[in-house]
Amino acid sequence: MKNISKYPEKNTWLTLLERPVLEKKDLRNTVGEIFLKVKNEGDSALKEFSEKFDQVQIDQFLVSENEIESAIDEVSEDLKTAIKQAKENICKFHLTQKSEKKEIETTEGVVCWRESRAIENVGLYIPGGTAPLFSTVLMLAVPAQIAGCKELILCTPPQKDGSINPAILFTAQLCAVTKIFKVGGAQAIAALTLGTESIPKVDKIFGPGNQYVTQAKQLAMEYNVAIDLPAGPSEVLVIADETANPEFCAADLLSQAEHGIDSQVIFISTDEVIFNETLKEIEKQVAELSRNEIAKVAIENSQFILMNSISEAIEMSNSYAPEHLILSIENPRNYIADITNAGSIFLGNYTPESAGDYASGTNHTLPTNGFARNYSGVSLDSFVKKITIQEISKTGIQNIGKTIEIMAAAEGLTAHKNAVSLRLKSLKNEI
Amino acid sequence: MKNISKYPEKNTWLTLLERPVLEKKDLRNTVGEIFLKVKNEGDSALKEFSEKFDQVQIDQFLVSENEIESAIDEVSEDLKTAIKQAKENICKFHLTQKSEKKEIETTEGVVCWRESRAIENVGLYIPGGTAPLFSTVLMLAVPAQIAGCKELILCTPPQKDGSINPAILFTAQLCAVTKIFKVGGAQAIAALTLGTESIPKVDKIFGPGNQYVTQAKQLAMEYNVAIDLPAGPSEVLVIADETANPEFCAADLLSQAEHGIDSQVIFISTDEVIFNETLKEIEKQVAELSRNEIAKVAIENSQFILMNSISEAIEMSNSYAPEHLILSIENPRNYIADITNAGSIFLGNYTPESAGDYASGTNHTLPTNGFARNYSGVSLDSFVKKITIQEISKTGIQNIGKTIEIMAAAEGLTAHKNAVSLRLKSLKNEI
Repeated sequence: MKNISKYPEKNTWLTLLERPVLEKKDLRNTVGEIFLKVKNEGDSALKEFSEKFDQVQIDQFLVSENEIESAIDEVSEDLKTAIKQAKENICKFHLTQKSEKKEIETTEGVVCWRESRAIENVGLYIPGGTAPLFSTVLMLAVPAQIAGCKELILCTPPQKDGSINPAILFTAQLCAVTKIFKVGGAQAIAALTLGTESIPKVDKIFGPGNQYVTQAKQLAMEYNVAIDLPAGPSEVLVIADETANPEFCAADLLSQAEHGIDSQVIFISTDEVIFNETLKEIEKQVAELSRNEIAKVAIENSQFILMNSISEAIEMSNSYAPEHLILSIENPRNYIADITNAGSIFLGNYTPESAGDYASGTNHTLPTNGFARNYSGVSLDSFVKKITIQEISKTGIQNIGKTIEIMAAAEGLTAHKNAVSLRLKSLKNEI
Repeated sequence: MKNISKYPEKNTWLTLLERPVLEKKDLRNTVGEIFLKVKNEGDSALKEFSEKFDQVQIDQFLVSENEIESAIDEVSEDLKTAIKQAKENICKFHLTQKSEKKEIETTEGVVCWRESRAIENVGLYIPGGTAPLFSTVLMLAVPAQIAGCKELILCTPPQKDGSINPAILFTAQLCAVTKIFKVGGAQAIAALTLGTESIPKVDKIFGPGNQYVTQAKQLAMEYNVAIDLPAGPSEVLVIADETANPEFCAADLLSQAEHGIDSQVIFISTDEVIFNETLKEIEKQVAELSRNEIAKVAIENSQFILMNSISEAIEMSNSYAPEHLILSIENPRNYIADITNAGSIFLGNYTPESAGDYASGTNHTLPTNGFARNYSGVSLDSFVKKITIQEISKTGIQNIGKTIEIMAAAEGLTAHKNAVSLRLKSLKNEI
């Protein structure tokens, strides 16, 4: 924990909070070749890649009903109850994101509104590795189901024995995922982009993944498939005043740090006692974590900053644009209006980031790497398109017709003008 | 007009409505070099590119107050009034897109909601060329202003004499654009992405452009700048029954056709008389258009399809996912629910596409090239991020704490669990 700054000058902030430049290995060619092979050879390419990258032989990519049934039996009742409570809260929160139809008559006889339609086919990618991210299944499949997406296609890499973690399968069936495929990595993204004999092509791909998956999602966009968000390592910024609890602050910082050695962890306090005690608490707590090797590295790279005021701390946070922002301060609601850039905000001492990661109801797929400046996290909006609709009456076109004619003529588009002129003429003849 | 199909079999639809594959010239290297030069040399690179590509020498990129004042004098009163009416309608419609804060208590003591924040710095690109697209200035700057974006930076290529079309300048000042720069092409996008001595770096870039601009916007994303929409040629699909007016249908098809030789124009009718008369009307009207050479080519490539029923026509339209969909049919509102993929829908005989292009209030920046399957058009949403916020009370964390602990443990994330356990423990001690 070497990165301690006390009352830094404003002109040093940018450097202080500079994110490590992600070493963008040029995986474009590697991933491009995977796409090409999946395009040409379909399932057989997927088989080859599974053997090569995951060291597992898969004959049937589609997870069978039987496999799902056994998985349901394997998951403990406690975990099932927990997943169900989380699902219910995620469902409640995302239901508030439905938008009502609002018709407006912009000019007499000119009525406009928007309607939402589900994106029909969505691909949900759930990475493998050490942690079975069934919580991400909830975060993607629940809003997809509320939106009314027709096909929810989930891809996740098989374990060495060819199976999928039961909690992932349980959660997927609970959220009405249509089909689950045992395939991971860039080849899974290629399959969702291009379609194979087994795996259907989708319209939009969601979910986290390693650098190959990230590159593959970028390539998917060149094939006209949309993606959820650009990727980056996870981040938390905690602002604490004298009312904060150092034990809780340390725990929140560490729960970010355990994600990966590239996790970004920033602590800003206006109170030197809280500041020092939090530093001590981290030392104490980190030893007991199962992923303490990872957390230690992330903490070494983290920033601990003492500042003069909450408003200054928020100004600094806005310039950093954190994925998660925890306000462990008195009356945190008073400061919300000042926050311009953040993925998700956690208010007060009893709102840990892990609540949002799992069960409060908010979505944990959030903009990282400074993308909180220009992107929202995943929400119901991510699974729908909004279509604009307009209906103009005879009166309406008489009211705005001249305006359109003048503007179209000034832009040199006579056919655009003519489409209105002919209608106005026919109405004159009617009278 | 060779592409006439009568009652095509469903298995031929996909081929029939296949879009021409856009010849993606590999401009990545060319545009990449422009970015590099702008990054290293700033304004002096922009000067060089303006001389090279636009054959104009620019000493000051920023449009001066004087230039804006003279432009305002040059625009006719008629055009000013028209632009103002259009602005008012666009403003009214986009104001309906503001989302109200909806707090929800997902579990007792767990409160979640979303708040919108403007994307602070936005870049608006307005292409040069034959048509001065001041209407696009309205479509981008009005929602940016409503969203509360701080900096609205407009870039547009200068004319040969170094000036900007007065209607563009008039509209920009009317919509409170912060700064206008005389620079176009890939170098303008590079400047907005990277910043130069004159031009500030932005968070998101909006607006249409040629293939260099399109490629530059793609590259901008690799520099963490967001963009509005992927690009493609403009499209209209008209569905007409026996109540349609062939004169109007022809005019609507032609107003799409005049955009460019690659414009996609599709006409589907359930009535053979209307079908044939529309074909005749096109021949008649096309001759009189100022851009008839362009329109003729686009019409040659267009599709005219006779079908059995409106519901079949809508099914076909859904599979094509048109940017603009005109329903020149009886009781068009009855069919809206069946439409799953479209950018914007125009209902009835008095709602020409050009109304939406200019003055009804809807946005004309819409998804083309099949992107209506997975993207919405530009709206107020495009200029904001939505931040999720949560506040959990002591009761709240007691209600969902166990759920979080179980889920975090099952994902192997003990620090996530610990952040909750410590809080639950402290509450037990309180009692």
